[in-house]
Amino acid sequence: MSVLFPRVALIGLGLIASSIAHAARRAGVAGEIVGYDVSGDVRDTAREIALCDRITDTPDAAVVDADLVILCVPPGAMGSVARQIGAALKPGAILSDVGSTKRSVIDAVMPYVPGNVSFIPAHPLAGTEHSGPRAGFASLFDNRWCIIVPQEDTPADRLQMLQDFWQALGANTEVMDADHHDRVLAVTSHTPHLIAYTMVGVADDLGRVTDSEVIKYSAAGFRDFTRIAASDPTMWRDVFLNNKDATLEILGRFTEELFALQRAIRQGDGDHLHAYFTRTRAIRRGIIEAGQDTAKPNFGRGIEDVSESKG
Amino acid sequence: MSVLFPRVALIGLGLIASSIAHAARRAGVAGEIVGYDVSGDVRDTAREIALCDRITDTPDAAVVDADLVILCVPPGAMGSVARQIGAALKPGAILSDVGSTKRSVIDAVMPYVPGNVSFIPAHPLAGTEHSGPRAGFASLFDNRWCIIVPQEDTPADRLQMLQDFWQALGANTEVMDADHHDRVLAVTSHTPHLIAYTMVGVADDLGRVTDSEVIKYSAAGFRDFTRIAASDPTMWRDVFLNNKDATLEILGRFTEELFALQRAIRQGDGDHLHAYFTRTRAIRRGIIEAGQDTAKPNFGRGIEDVSESKG
Ligand SMILES: NC(=O)c1ccc[n+]([C@@H]2O[C@H](COP(=O)([O-])OP(=O)(O)OC[C@H]3O[C@@H](n4cnc5c(N)ncnc54)[C@H](OP(=O)(O)O)[C@@H]3O)[C@@H](O)[C@H]2O)c1
Ligand SMILES: NC(=O)c1ccc[n+]([C@@H]2O[C@H](COP(=O)([O-])OP(=O)(O)OC[C@H]3O[C@@H](n4cnc5c(N)ncnc54)[C@H](OP(=O)(O)O)[C@@H]3O)[C@@H](O)[C@H]2O)c1
Repeated sequence: MSVLFPRVALIGLGLIASSIAHAARRAGVAGEIVGYDVSGDVRDTAREIALCDRITDTPDAAVVDADLVILCVPPGAMGSVARQIGAALKPGAILSDVGSTKRSVIDAVMPYVPGNVSFIPAHPLAGTEHSGPRAGFASLFDNRWCIIVPQEDTPADRLQMLQDFWQALGANTEVMDADHHDRVLAVTSHTPHLIAYTMVGVADDLGRVTDSEVIKYSAAGFRDFTRIAASDPTMWRDVFLNNKDATLEILGRFTEELFALQRAIRQGDGDHLHAYFTRTRAIRRGIIEAGQDTAKPNFGRGIEDVSESKG
Repeated sequence: MSVLFPRVALIGLGLIASSIAHAARRAGVAGEIVGYDVSGDVRDTAREIALCDRITDTPDAAVVDADLVILCVPPGAMGSVARQIGAALKPGAILSDVGSTKRSVIDAVMPYVPGNVSFIPAHPLAGTEHSGPRAGFASLFDNRWCIIVPQEDTPADRLQMLQDFWQALGANTEVMDADHHDRVLAVTSHTPHLIAYTMVGVADDLGRVTDSEVIKYSAAGFRDFTRIAASDPTMWRDVFLNNKDATLEILGRFTEELFALQRAIRQGDGDHLHAYFTRTRAIRRGIIEAGQDTAKPNFGRGIEDVSESKG
């Protein structure tokens, strides 16, 4: 693959930025990669592991002469970063981001984007429960979707360049408007995360079933929730504050359905439960057929994996 | 390992029974394994794959002269199977089960247990989202817990024999009373399953976010729920009908917490959200340190796994 952008700047050097750096190197699509993070520790780590070609000590220094700038900070920090770098952006550059919410990021960033820069928001649907500059790896985006949210005045050739970049990183791209993105993600990501956090919080709270029992017997289902509920608290706080309406709407639907199932349990209505539990199987099949998850039992986690991690 | 039981009978030849058969063979602890299932198709499959040494066409024929009989049918069928086999049980035999609820199974089975037979309920905390006689594998119970629920009059030597059996199958055993078991499982298994079913049901229901989008973008979190929500509907209907009180109690706590988080989102209370999301990380660490899950990102499912399953 040939170089698509002579200079790429990454702001916020966590899981996503470090994965972009590794994947861009693997693909050879970035001439030079420059990075900045607000945390001195993170910058030190990034230098130590040679994550980028160069790490700067200020955000505006990182974006000078960059052809593509990607904001990889938590959603709530996007606006202040945009304010810091806006004036230093190169005319003709593409500014993008990877935030998990889109409407609020656009509202926060747009005021600081100079007229000669194209702001094209994006969101790669790929992640793990780990964070920080050491968490990234080159294959994170392989076969995953990256949703791109062009603005009304985004030039077609700029949009194409950003799509080419994400495809070179291994992703499939899809174009969507911001509000639709936020609704889709409320269902497929934000509400599931909130529910997982809640379930784990409940288990943590119970006095009668002691912590150690919750942990010991977690393989019966609970452990699947704990992975999601171990995700970064700052990012997820920002997600919920920034996708409030869509998340609350889906949560409302969730609560309704949960009450109906609760009533069926209380009344001993086995037919209702059986019908409900049958319907949900089809979705799993669809996900496996679409190549979005493994068909192996228990996600393929073998006993070797578990023993391996045993301290 | 030497033979612990000259003849073992398995009733209900699904995931759990077939895994017991494979694991018992691997360990060499059963002289002969006899099986029965209510479904002719399942019996045919079991014969075809030589799951047991012998498959009988009636339940009572299977248990004749068996030293250990394990009921592996859904919780709601335990009572009727006990009624069918009670009179045919060998004096001195151990009768056990693997049901996911314990109080209700004891109430249903106990009336049919002859005085000269020891009924010792058990529950291996191991499973996958698959079912049927082909779903089993020998390592399912390795390093997993099997909870054993002796009755007041269970002789110590019988209890020991059943513990030895499950340990030979790879499990760690723990003794608990039925009510405590049902409460622990309501937290670690039953409520998480109900919540996963609900979330998947909500996604399935939404008209605006089309099914295909839910599937396409599921890797952002939702797919983790679909695995659990693909579990056997009959078994799970029975679980909720048979562990009603404990499940409803935990669901009540869950709803309270969810409402508090919902309020925090509505009011923009980022501190509450951040504090909650921080607390839940510790549980995940505990589970990994206890060897009950893999530390690998995304449960270690690699892109290879996913592509492999791509049809
Ligand atoms: N993780 C996922 O699953 C996932 C998936 C898709 C998209 N995303 C999105 O990707 C973005 C980054 O997530 P991540 O998982 O990579 O998080 P991460 O590993 O926590 O990395 C974020 C980095 O940004 C730094 N940062 C915070 N505020 C900053 C600022 N004002 N200027 C410069 N750097 C700043 C953080 O430093 P400190 O640690 O010192 O705060 C941290 O090093 C978020 O917008 C998130 O919504 C995440
Ligand atoms: N799956 C898990 O994760 C898990 C974990 C621990 C414990 N358990 C417990 O293990 C037991 C079996 O679960 P499983 O996952 O192995 O289920 P499964 O794969 O669906 O197997 C159950 C088998 O029992 C048969 N059956 C139903 N009623 C019967 C009857 N009256 N007489 C004889 N056979 C009958 C079923 O036949 P049909 O298909 O024709 O109905 C089916 O073949 C349940 O009590 C469950 O609570 C399950």
